[in-house]
Amino acid sequence: MIYKDILKRIKPSQNEKNRIKVIVDKIIKVIEEKAIKEDYEVKVQLTGSIAKDTWLSGSADIDIFITFPIDVNVEELKEKGLKLAYYCNEVLNGIATEKYASHPYLKISFEGYSIDIVPAYYIEKTSQMKSAVDRTTLHTKYIIKNLKNYQKDEVLLLKKFMKEVKVYGSEFKTGGFAGYLCELLILKYGSFENTLKESSNWTEETTINLENYNITKSFKDSLIFIDPTDKNRNVAASLTEEKLNEFIFASRNYMKNPKEAYFFPLEKRCQIEDILNQIKDRQTKIIFISFKIPDIPIDNIYPQLKKTSDSLKEKLEEIEFTIVKNSYWSDEKEIAILTLEFDTWTLGKYEKNVGPKIRYKKASEQFTSIHENVFLEDGFLIEKRERRFKTPEKFIYHVFKEDNIKILKIGKNIKDNIINGYKLFNINDNEILKNEMFLDYLDDYLHPSQHLKR
Amino acid sequence: MIYKDILKRIKPSQNEKNRIKVIVDKIIKVIEEKAIKEDYEVKVQLTGSIAKDTWLSGSADIDIFITFPIDVNVEELKEKGLKLAYYCNEVLNGIATEKYASHPYLKISFEGYSIDIVPAYYIEKTSQMKSAVDRTTLHTKYIIKNLKNYQKDEVLLLKKFMKEVKVYGSEFKTGGFAGYLCELLILKYGSFENTLKESSNWTEETTINLENYNITKSFKDSLIFIDPTDKNRNVAASLTEEKLNEFIFASRNYMKNPKEAYFFPLEKRCQIEDILNQIKDRQTKIIFISFKIPDIPIDNIYPQLKKTSDSLKEKLEEIEFTIVKNSYWSDEKEIAILTLEFDTWTLGKYEKNVGPKIRYKKASEQFTSIHENVFLEDGFLIEKRERRFKTPEKFIYHVFKEDNIKILKIGKNIKDNIINGYKLFNINDNEILKNEMFLDYLDDYLHPSQHLKR
Repeated sequence: MIYKDILKRIKPSQNEKNRIKVIVDKIIKVIEEKAIKEDYEVKVQLTGSIAKDTWLSGSADIDIFITFPIDVNVEELKEKGLKLAYYCNEVLNGIATEKYASHPYLKISFEGYSIDIVPAYYIEKTSQMKSAVDRTTLHTKYIIKNLKNYQKDEVLLLKKFMKEVKVYGSEFKTGGFAGYLCELLILKYGSFENTLKESSNWTEETTINLENYNITKSFKDSLIFIDPTDKNRNVAASLTEEKLNEFIFASRNYMKNPKEAYFFPLEKRCQIEDILNQIKDRQTKIIFISFKIPDIPIDNIYPQLKKTSDSLKEKLEEIEFTIVKNSYWSDEKEIAILTLEFDTWTLGKYEKNVGPKIRYKKASEQFTSIHENVFLEDGFLIEKRERRFKTPEKFIYHVFKEDNIKILKIGKNIKDNIINGYKLFNINDNEILKNEMFLDYLDDYLHPSQHLKR
Repeated sequence: MIYKDILKRIKPSQNEKNRIKVIVDKIIKVIEEKAIKEDYEVKVQLTGSIAKDTWLSGSADIDIFITFPIDVNVEELKEKGLKLAYYCNEVLNGIATEKYASHPYLKISFEGYSIDIVPAYYIEKTSQMKSAVDRTTLHTKYIIKNLKNYQKDEVLLLKKFMKEVKVYGSEFKTGGFAGYLCELLILKYGSFENTLKESSNWTEETTINLENYNITKSFKDSLIFIDPTDKNRNVAASLTEEKLNEFIFASRNYMKNPKEAYFFPLEKRCQIEDILNQIKDRQTKIIFISFKIPDIPIDNIYPQLKKTSDSLKEKLEEIEFTIVKNSYWSDEKEIAILTLEFDTWTLGKYEKNVGPKIRYKKASEQFTSIHENVFLEDGFLIEKRERRFKTPEKFIYHVFKEDNIKILKIGKNIKDNIINGYKLFNINDNEILKNEMFLDYLDDYLHPSQHLKR
């Protein structure tokens, strides 16, 4: 495979680099000057993929750390740090949002760039760390020091491949590979292709220990990449089993038949008509349940949607409906939708309530004294009784009520919104098909693993 | 419970007894005189419930054994025995059918009575036995010697109760209690009620050893009643687990609420309309498969029907249909019908063919090289493929063909009749509802255990 053409398209141009440099230099200058003026003792550091020169064209996230000496107390750090960040935003005339990771930081939207200004401590080794964000500067330094110039292209190829097969990004929603992990994989395996090749051989207990540390801590994750800056930390801790498997599948598919297409977005059409036809073709029943999401970080909502969806599936299968697939989606602003797809969605009127073996005399006598319609089958006493929920909808109407919802394992932040205003609909009777993001989700739903193959 | 009135109805009247005695005396005289004339050395013996005075009014089966000395060879025994039997039938002017148990015997239908004339050896203890039928004379002698006069009524109550709850009769079709076993139970437990009471406490390893033999043989049956005439034989060997459980259930129901009704046929109406309504009410799908039965003893056909029915159920469940109940019926003359009742009888168009874990590299590569539409789910590779059989009917049409039927475990004697002329129908489109026996079967099908409760 020749990667020259691909790199041309994914590597930032000199122009793009220059523009970023101008912005970065300006931000650093503004903060440094303000700090001097206020008499704050800080070092302003560029971190992340721009500092490491491993960012993909068009997706430059600028990470600026305002680092304070470690003897500054945390309240002072927060106050002074945010003050400098807000001042910077004023000068830039950007749009600022306060965010939180270990402690508050500022996200500035400016000229199409996303700029994080993060107060942290200035540390030179992990033992000095006061909060998790402090470590970032060490990561940046480690990569700058160790990643050879020609390996940067390999990092870009790996990041872009991961991005397009949808396994890139360590935030909770994705559960994929962090940028730092990509860089470390290239340090370990030397090249993009070799990383893909080697990943195929990862067993379920792979440990990669670049610095040959003497490891004393035991990790439970399915891929363990010991952080070269901290032997007690697994860089891949937030990587889910699912994303790891997806990466392995995509890697094998790519190595068998390498194509440029893997480095660019999958061409999907998402025509409403196509999607409706495909759903019809499956001859199953799909139920959607929509409700408003609360105003909390989306990373907190996704696990709650998953938990609720899985619990609904479990309970519906207990009452003998067969679920082909369950899933969830959110526009990350207003609504979430749970999807339940059934192979079996109507059942006979009666069900068997299996009692004790007839030979267990006491239990049998108790069973027959409680129940009316008891017969004997294969040595067991069975009560013939009317099914309570003849359709999945009936169960959902029942369970989504204040008094009944406790039988589900449901996300605590979404519970009230579900009880107070869920809507149950199917593919034919809703506005939702006008939402392109939802269509995109349905397309992925109907074609699982489509991103992993080209 | 006062049994006087019941006994009055189930005990043979003096009149009935006299009539039987006349017939029995005549048969014995005819055979004895003929034997003398032919110079055969035989003893003619009345056996069975008439000899033991434990038969139910209206159901006298007359068992006459023509016993030969044990030094006569078996061919001679068969020839001379049948010759005497046929002669007897000639004199009676009855209708004779040759039957077989160990060796041939003659069943004569005469004036509404069924008379078995059975050639056997004259033996005085089990060790002399040459074939299984020889043992019958020993059983008769044992009961006559040990059963007290007042216990005969208890035997009648037990037999009639068992008959009406449908657990009486040791032929293969029923798999129930033999008459001899009933008599032994009364010898053991003293009375009808005590037998019912004690049966409730039978564990799954009950052994009853009336003569306190030193047992060396180990039996696998769930009720073991050592034959007082043969310590190596279990009288209850042919009693099925099912009939044993049914007897226990009926006994408990009776003891809780004793009623005369248990001694008389269950009142069923079997109105077509009722049955159709009850089937409709279940909201399931019932499929019937009818075919001609071959001209072999019905006891050989029933196990083949069961085997075929169970195998069909197993295969249909493998392809994800859900069966509530499967059953079979035969008119014992011309046809048999298999019944399959479904809770789930339509399924989505596609199914998941679950392949290896993605982490098993070799297996994964083989799987993806064979199959087209492969995706990843929970760490496994899955092929999405079209379901071959979308309805149970499609599977049945497929499997009941010469080349495909081998995937079923099917009765060997009914196989050809199924392949060459089965008919698949449902409750709405068949002549069969005109058959009262079939309606009776359907009534029992719809009300399992109805005979065990009153």
